[in-house]
Parts: sequence; C-alpha cells; structure tokens
Amino acid sequence: MSPSSSLLTPAPPWETTQWFNSEPLDLAQLRGRVVVLEAFQMLCPGCVSHALPQAVRLSRTFGDDLAVIGLHTVFEHHQAMTPTSLEAFLHEYRIPFPVGVDAFRSADPAPVTFSRYRMRGTPTTVLIDRDGVLRAHRFGQVDDMALASAVTRLLDGAAPRLLDEEAAPGVCAVDGTCT
Amino acid sequence: MSPSSSLLTPAPPWETTQWFNSEPLDLAQLRGRVVVLEAFQMLCPGCVSHALPQAVRLSRTFGDDLAVIGLHTVFEHHQAMTPTSLEAFLHEYRIPFPVGVDAFRSADPAPVTFSRYRMRGTPTTVLIDRDGVLRAHRFGQVDDMALASAVTRLLDGAAPRLLDEEAAPGVCAVDGTCT
Amino acid sequence: MSPSSSLLTPAPPWETTQWFNSEPLDLAQLRGRVVVLEAFQMLCPGCVSHALPQAVRLSRTFGDDLAVIGLHTVFEHHQAMTPTSLEAFLHEYRIPFPVGVDAFRSADPAPVTFSRYRMRGTPTTVLIDRDGVLRAHRFGQVDDMALASAVTRLLDGAAPRLLDEEAAPGVCAVDGTCT
Amino acid sequence: MSPSSSLLTPAPPWETTQWFNSEPLDLAQLRGRVVVLEAFQMLCPGCVSHALPQAVRLSRTFGDDLAVIGLHTVFEHHQAMTPTSLEAFLHEYRIPFPVGVDAFRSADPAPVTFSRYRMRGTPTTVLIDRDGVLRAHRFGQVDDMALASAVTRLLDGAAPRLLDEEAAPGVCAVDGTCT
Repeated sequence: MSPSSSLLTPAPPWETTQWFNSEPLDLAQLRGRVVVLEAFQMLCPGCVSHALPQAVRLSRTFGDDLAVIGLHTVFEHHQAMTPTSLEAFLHEYRIPFPVGVDAFRSADPAPVTFSRYRMRGTPTTVLIDRDGVLRAHRFGQVDDMALASAVTRLLDGAAPRLLDEEAAPGVCAVDGTCT
Repeated sequence: MSPSSSLLTPAPPWETTQWFNSEPLDLAQLRGRVVVLEAFQMLCPGCVSHALPQAVRLSRTFGDDLAVIGLHTVFEHHQAMTPTSLEAFLHEYRIPFPVGVDAFRSADPAPVTFSRYRMRGTPTTVLIDRDGVLRAHRFGQVDDMALASAVTRLLDGAAPRLLDEEAAPGVCAVDGTCT
Repeated sequence: MSPSSSLLTPAPPWETTQWFNSEPLDLAQLRGRVVVLEAFQMLCPGCVSHALPQAVRLSRTFGDDLAVIGLHTVFEHHQAMTPTSLEAFLHEYRIPFPVGVDAFRSADPAPVTFSRYRMRGTPTTVLIDRDGVLRAHRFGQVDDMALASAVTRLLDGAAPRLLDEEAAPGVCAVDGTCT
Repeated sequence: MSPSSSLLTPAPPWETTQWFNSEPLDLAQLRGRVVVLEAFQMLCPGCVSHALPQAVRLSRTFGDDLAVIGLHTVFEHHQAMTPTSLEAFLHEYRIPFPVGVDAFRSADPAPVTFSRYRMRGTPTTVLIDRDGVLRAHRFGQVDDMALASAVTRLLDGAAPRLLDEEAAPGVCAVDGTCT
C-alpha cells in the first residue's frame, strides 16, 4: 500500500456501465463511509481464490461500517468476461456485495476506472476514507491481518499503516501475464 | 461410484462441437488407454476449486498411461459459459489436458453427452477402461486416494473398487442448485 | 470476547515457574505496551494448528508495538507436557516469542494463572491494554480479521470491538474433552 | 521411493519396547497383509501436519486390507518425547492405528529399527508386501495419489511404481535439522 499521507488526494470518480447486487453507485453516495474497492476479473485465478473471498470476509467482519464494493476491471479477454458471464459468476460464487462494471472504450484495452486509479492488474485493493480520500492501493494479495488493521484505522479516523507488499501468486498484470 | 461390474456396458459415444488443447477426440481413438472423463462447468465453484485441480494432479501422477479429458457440460447459464469464455478460462487456469465442448440442442437445457451418461450435475468423474467400457461414475467430490486407487486398478486391468460417495460441497446439480 | 468496557479490571498478575525465549516477564514490565496473551497446551491440536500460528502472524504483522506472549497452561496430562517437552516443542515449531510456564499446585489440575483468568480451556486469547487492563478474553478460535482489528484499536488507545465467538474446532476444555 | 525390484529383500524385523492402540506386533504376525509403516516423531511438525493425517486417510481408504502401523523413532530430544508424552499425543490427536516405540540404546541417538531400515529422518514411509518384502521407502512428504497407487499395486500383488521424491517441508533429518 502506498501510504502517501502527505499527498492525500481525492479518489478518482468511478465510471461504470452496469451494476449487480445494487442500484448504480458512485463515490459521492458513499461519502461518510469507509470504502474497500476490490478490482477483479472473473477469470483471474488469484481474484477467485483469494481476493473475492477476502472481500466477503471483510464485509462480514465489519458489517455496515464498511462499504465493500467490487469493480470488474476487464483488461484482457473482453469477449470472455461480458456482463452476462459476470452475472452468472456472481450468482454461482454467491458474491453478496455491489459490483460495478468498469467502463471500456475500445481504443484502450484497459478500462476507464482502472486507468484513472493507475492500477497495474488484478486483484487490486483500494482503501478510501470517509471523506472520499484515497488512502491505500495495492496490487496482488494482501494479508488478512494487515488489511483488517488498515480498515480499522480508517473506520476510527486514523491513518492506515500497511506493511510491505507480499509476493502475489495468482495475479494478472496488465501486460497479459498471469502468475 | 457405481461398481456395476456385472453390468459392464460400453461408454456412450461423446458428441462434442469443439475442442481445446487437442484435435477432436472420440472414445474410439482412445481405445487401449484408460480414460478419466471430468465433466465440469467453468462457473461451477466445486469444479474450479476441487475437480479440475484434481484432474491436473491425476495427469501428473499417471502421465501418458492415463488420458485425462475434460468435458464442458453446460446445463445452465448457457450465454455465460460460451466456448469463447471457456477458452479464456482454460488459458488463465492453465488446464493442460484436452477439453471438449458437449453438444447442445436448444430443446433441452442439458447437453447431449451429459444426458447419455445420465449425469446429475457437475463435477462428475467418469472412468473408462482400455476396452472402452464404463467402469465408474461419480457426481461430486471424489477423494484423491480412492480415485488414484481406482485408476491404478484400471491401468493394471483389474476392477476398480470405489468407496462411498462423500458429501459434495460446491457441486451444481441439474435442477439449478449449487451448493 | 467479553467487551465489558464498563467493568474494566486490571489483568490479574501471572504466576509462572519458567520462561523460554525470554528472561522472566511479568505484566508490570509490559506496562505501556499492548499485550496478547496466548494460553495453550503443546498437545492441544487446535493450539498447534490454529492459535500458535496466528500468534506468530500477529507478531509479524504488528512488530514491536505488540507484545505477543505464550502461556503454557497445562490442565491435563501433566507428565506428558513437562517444561522439557515444551522446550523441544518450541524449538521444533520455531515459536519466536516469550513463553511462560503457568504455575501448578498439585491440589488443583488447573494451573494458577489459568484459574485467575477464569479460563475454560485452550486455546484462550487474552488482550491487555497499555495500562494493564484486561480488555478481551476468548476461548477457542478467533478470526484473523477480528483479532487484528481489536489489536489495532488497543494500539490506538480505543476500545476493541470483537465479534461473536465462533465455533471452535480443536479446542481442549478443562473438563477433559478435546474437539 | 527406491524401486529396487531386482533387489527384493525382507523387511528387517522391528525392535520395539512398547505399543499403543494394540498388543505388541511384529512383522511375522502381519505376513499376508500389506503394511504401511509410518516412522514419525511426535514433535516433528511435518509428521503432525502431513504424514500422520495421511496415514489416517490410508487407513480409512483401504480398511482392513492394509495394516497401517506407526513407529515412534525418536532420534533427538529423547527426554521430551517419552512414551508418556507419546501416549497423550496419540490420545489428543486421535490416532487410531497401532503405534510401536522404537527401541533405543543410549550409545546411539538413532533408535534400533530406524537404523536397521537406514532411515534418514522423519517422516519416513515404508511399504512392505504380503510376503514381508520391503518394497518402497521414502523420507519426506509423499503425495496422496502416488502413495494410494503404490499401495493398490501391492494389494493386488503387483510391483509399486513410485514417483520422484518431492520437496519435503517440515521434515526432521537425523543430523538435527528440521525444515
């Protein structure tokens, strides 16, 4: 996670085309709540085995204090991960939280919100505080304890401290390699 | 697994529309080899977390003695699990063995080969001996040791003995329920 | 965890007979630091598979801010879990933090500190704040996220909020049953 | 596993001082049955997390056809792993099969049966056929499928074929290093 507490910037707005498990959502509506944004692709193995189950655990642990939001940021195999496929995926994997579909312009394989947040691949976990400020941002697997600690600090209005990035098996980088 | 050693019947022919990781394959070509047919759906959680990794372990453990074959038997969410989506899935999950797409006629949600084998859902593991005879058939999770033992007996020309069916979390039954 | 924030009581003093990985320690020396006291028995399966690895993760996640302390609270099989056996156990399992041996009087199978803290079995996880006040106390498995959140709140001087107790496989209760 | 099918030698006799979960057993009594001998130490982490649960799975999978036997081969920390400690360990971990205590002479840290079988550490898995012939021998973790296949071949009177030895985390070698 990049602490960057001296450079607190507002989280960029999301640009989405469709939502599942929710009415359309934007950051302004979530002002006042801490947000964990989990950017994933439904065919990214590390997202399915690690990041999405972790997001479900976050949601169960922190309840309504925390807004856990999925963002489907497809940057490869676009025809394989359509909203129709995503809808069935969310149903079969019983994902309970809102999931937005990142907007996509055909000129660029990377979708719009993904690019605004300068993401490098999936999964990426983003923490946003009650004032809509981007507080942490990590590509790859995040440890449960470190993530829960950072979320707790944001809920309590303190600065999160996140540890070094771990090795991240099962991620998909925007250059097309999945590990 | 249904032992049914007194009722040895030829395994029904497969009807497929497309193959990945292989030229088109049918049972006649595999005569002389033991075959494990793993019927799955790419959005069935128990297939992704258990049955497909197990099929990969089988393939590594037994090498060329054994033909491990995947069969994509979609009986729900047909628009979500097209061959295009399957191809990306097989690539991202690094499935190394041949995978056929079960034929589908729009009158029936269950695909053709799935119905011929009287499958109840996914995953289903089918064992076929060197003579093309159907020797075992199980819906749900199979234990690694029991499966390796049954495959070994078929490789050695003996009758497989399979144990009681276990509880099978993560399967998808043809009535549309996934557990 | 019993919140009992209205009934904040000092954590009872520890009575120990021996220490490993440390000079003898008591609570007074740890004043100013948050303490996680992990009460375990070396032959309690749930302690070995869950609670001790979790305590090691806590220690790695929070570093020197947090004092993670093991307490060997033997209440059964006393001849099987002597300090000599414990020393080899700690070496083989590479437990890095200080571990005290709870004092034992032959009249009572339960050891002294275990009884002072009214523990019901092992593992039991106890949280003590910087002022030496007992803040939470749980028998059985604690979830990583909930525990990390509670520790974070204590480190930041806030009250921990812990969730409902989970099912706890692998614990040993003082009545002699291990599950 | 060393195949050495050209060098079939009788399995050396066991020398034990005590048995748990059984009357005293020797190889002569087990003639006619296939035997898996699992050599372990109760404080060897890889034995506790991998080899003993695997031996329990073998016992459940193959039932009475197979004699699964534990052998407590202590070669370090002798005072920490006495028969008294072992008895409590077997009780708490619910080990259901017979376990013998390897004989020990104070001149040599390695126990008698361990040395006769030229073991290098724990866990070591030994396969013995119905005629009392030593058929396979491996130090470290063995894969479930490969082991079940080898056991099946011995049960059927065929030669086992075992794959290459894997990386073996959590073993304890006789030179005192545990990994």
